[in-house]
Amino acid sequence: MKFSVTVTLKKDVLDPQGKVVQNTLINMGLSDLKSIRQGKHFEIEVDEKDETTAKKKVDVMCKKLLVNLIIEDYKISKI
Amino acid sequence: MKFSVTVTLKKDVLDPQGKVVQNTLINMGLSDLKSIRQGKHFEIEVDEKDETTAKKKVDVMCKKLLVNLIIEDYKISKI
Repeated sequence: MKFSVTVTLKKDVLDPQGKVVQNTLINMGLSDLKSIRQGKHFEIEVDEKDETTAKKKVDVMCKKLLVNLIIEDYKISKI
Repeated sequence: MKFSVTVTLKKDVLDPQGKVVQNTLINMGLSDLKSIRQGKHFEIEVDEKDETTAKKKVDVMCKKLLVNLIIEDYKISKI
């Protein structure tokens, strides 16, 4: 079973990497850009047939390693 | 108008970062993991009302800066 996990910075956390990308795009002439924020994306395949159990396992992975819960939010969705 | 862009490595491209995460998770005892691949995620807000034009602008940003088309695929979706 395959899941997609999107990790984004919480909205009050500064995103210097996104800011650099934003400035670069504006300098390149793409001036309609209002804001850009960067995050991480994971595609996780779990060896488990039951969707609820599989999702729970992915959630454990996120909490234990992939996500810093203090500054980041995450969303798991089946693909 | 807000879009979400997901950038992933093409399937034949090695993903050393994902491999490290995978090994770490397995060493932590999460043995049901079959595979994990890491990518990038962008949340882009564009100052443009028309959806088609806005999407086209995001596409230009991806092609010009955000995505390395030789080794990466990308997907744009409205949020």
